Amino acid sequence: MSDLILRDDTGPIVRLVLNSPQNFNALSAEMIATLYTTLATVANEEGPRVIIIAAEGKAFSAGHDLRQMQAARANIDGGRAGFAALFEGCSQLMQLISTLPQPVIAEVQGIATAAGCQLVASCDLAVASEKARFGVNGIDVGLFCATPAVALSRAIPRKAAFELLVTGDFISAVEAQRLGLVNRVVAPDSLASETMSLARKIAQKLPSAIAMGKRGFYEQLAHDTADAYEAAGDTMVANMMLSDTNEGLNAFLEKRRPSWDATEPEAAE
Amino acid sequence: MSDLILRDDTGPIVRLVLNSPQNFNALSAEMIATLYTTLATVANEEGPRVIIIAAEGKAFSAGHDLRQMQAARANIDGGRAGFAALFEGCSQLMQLISTLPQPVIAEVQGIATAAGCQLVASCDLAVASEKARFGVNGIDVGLFCATPAVALSRAIPRKAAFELLVTGDFISAVEAQRLGLVNRVVAPDSLASETMSLARKIAQKLPSAIAMGKRGFYEQLAHDTADAYEAAGDTMVANMMLSDTNEGLNAFLEKRRPSWDATEPEAAE
Amino acid sequence: MSDLILRDDTGPIVRLVLNSPQNFNALSAEMIATLYTTLATVANEEGPRVIIIAAEGKAFSAGHDLRQMQAARANIDGGRAGFAALFEGCSQLMQLISTLPQPVIAEVQGIATAAGCQLVASCDLAVASEKARFGVNGIDVGLFCATPAVALSRAIPRKAAFELLVTGDFISAVEAQRLGLVNRVVAPDSLASETMSLARKIAQKLPSAIAMGKRGFYEQLAHDTADAYEAAGDTMVANMMLSDTNEGLNAFLEKRRPSWDATEPEAAE
Repeated sequence: MSDLILRDDTGPIVRLVLNSPQNFNALSAEMIATLYTTLATVANEEGPRVIIIAAEGKAFSAGHDLRQMQAARANIDGGRAGFAALFEGCSQLMQLISTLPQPVIAEVQGIATAAGCQLVASCDLAVASEKARFGVNGIDVGLFCATPAVALSRAIPRKAAFELLVTGDFISAVEAQRLGLVNRVVAPDSLASETMSLARKIAQKLPSAIAMGKRGFYEQLAHDTADAYEAAGDTMVANMMLSDTNEGLNAFLEKRRPSWDATEPEAAE
Repeated sequence: MSDLILRDDTGPIVRLVLNSPQNFNALSAEMIATLYTTLATVANEEGPRVIIIAAEGKAFSAGHDLRQMQAARANIDGGRAGFAALFEGCSQLMQLISTLPQPVIAEVQGIATAAGCQLVASCDLAVASEKARFGVNGIDVGLFCATPAVALSRAIPRKAAFELLVTGDFISAVEAQRLGLVNRVVAPDSLASETMSLARKIAQKLPSAIAMGKRGFYEQLAHDTADAYEAAGDTMVANMMLSDTNEGLNAFLEKRRPSWDATEPEAAE
Repeated sequence: MSDLILRDDTGPIVRLVLNSPQNFNALSAEMIATLYTTLATVANEEGPRVIIIAAEGKAFSAGHDLRQMQAARANIDGGRAGFAALFEGCSQLMQLISTLPQPVIAEVQGIATAAGCQLVASCDLAVASEKARFGVNGIDVGLFCATPAVALSRAIPRKAAFELLVTGDFISAVEAQRLGLVNRVVAPDSLASETMSLARKIAQKLPSAIAMGKRGFYEQLAHDTADAYEAAGDTMVANMMLSDTNEGLNAFLEKRRPSWDATEPEAAE
């Protein structure tokens, strides 16, 4: 793995760190490809139960690499094909996150803007430092954050998303939480520990149920209510047929801890 | 009617009470069937204008009856058909609520978890005691609350719903209100009276307009904006053609109370 | 232009004022037609970059003109065709707003009810005075606000929208902001200046990017996530191919102001 992204495993929790502080963790073509490949790799391993995406330096991510984008204009098509490929790759990355069997938590220590804000919105969960700031300010250089808007407008109310997109304004972590973009806001010093604590709690659940449930969650969101219930009912039945779920229910009724084969609560503590 | 659900009519307001405190008002197959039948019966009567769903005991509802579910595993198919029927019945119950001509208010005095939380999310309105707590914690026993997620993710922001589903955490009534899951939070002592007060206000409106409007409300939500407006326009025209609406508009213009045949404001006071 | 709507241009910002205070700026057939025509005219002019919809008098708008609606009942069809045309025209007006190339800001100084509240919900952005109040209280005269519900239920959480529709209650500007119906709440004395300030900020962005982005924003909202990303990616590429965006990115990388041909920041200050 390139050192663009660092990986640190703590038992079943994989913490990935965007490691390009010199350009504010820009989502360059290389960063997008590396993050995509890393996530896909982790997702297919046996052990990982929760993935954290954190970042090195002052910014979480400042979005696309504008210098790299401008360089593509030298191509014979003025950059069009390169731009299309870049945004396609970025959109694939964002959509990959919701298809992974593991919940993905954004750990946001600093500014998250444009595609960086989209990355936060695309994670299943987000924990933010009080110092984090969020915006989709491409419009300040003449580029409306159209793809970030897809994730943002599904996470927060419509008028709030529109305001951020046309003003380029930034909001505080507290405001981001109020709107639904992040789940928790914590002191800068406890960001890593609080995010790890949330990850540990999730890692102690039954992974197969989490994976099934996460897939079902996003599937049903795309349907109308009746179809959503049909899909969700299938998920519930499949979940019930897991032997570990049988054990989980029996353990609950017998007031004891479930003995799930795959569970390693000690490793997660 | 079985004593699983108690019914108390106050003029046009029907208060149904889940009455199985010994198992925390579990949504057993019997409770689901009884609630479904009771709601369908009330809906077809002449008098009822508002329905309240309340609960006896410490819990509002703890969700499915796990003991009953585990017993189904003794069947030759390991329980699969029984689980499918249970979740199908439960989903039908939840969807029934939005099709009733009367608004349905959840009166939540205690904990509402898993399918119990789904019931709150599925009601048109919800009033909660400060002591109420909300969660979808099936994941703690290895069963992701996939069907509750359908209702929950349509009532509150996506990331907040996901967090509840994968952590099993509970939220307070105030937090539930902030997120949009409940409309009002009141002191425990005034829960019944405040819920009744909200019901009375709605009961004084024109029932045919309420029924038409409620049906139209959920119908348009399932459409894109253009189709939603087309459906809603039809609802408006049909509403305008009611003689009681003609009277309502004339009364307003003449600064007097409407004399709606079907209205019994005294009964509702 | 009829004096039903006054127009005041400040550089690239067009402020339209509903000017029928004697009937609380009712959205009569004439007001709807005039606002539609005025918006369509402004949208097609070269200069305008932001549109403000404000109102004269105590109310922002009290919704449809009930007296006019009742008069239509004298027609041979009891008013049906007239009602259908009225609601169709009103729905077209509301949907027009999101198709305009310019962002539209509601400047709400007083009460906004029924179709008046729908107008606020339909604008891209809204700034409200602390004195503003919001409701969809048609139900008080026997007419459920079915068409306003379309816009309202897409701006605020579902249960909150339902409560307003069946109770006829009004909410404060602060509560409207909490729910997502308005972006900012300001002192009555600074409403015009704060709205103008927000408009100026937007007017300084690249108009072609704003127009492209706004169109893309509402388009992607109507799609599921995968289709939304495909549409949004096309928008991003088209935006990148604008020469002004090339200049905007170069200016950013060179730490200078962009020299956008069409930009008149002085006029907007």
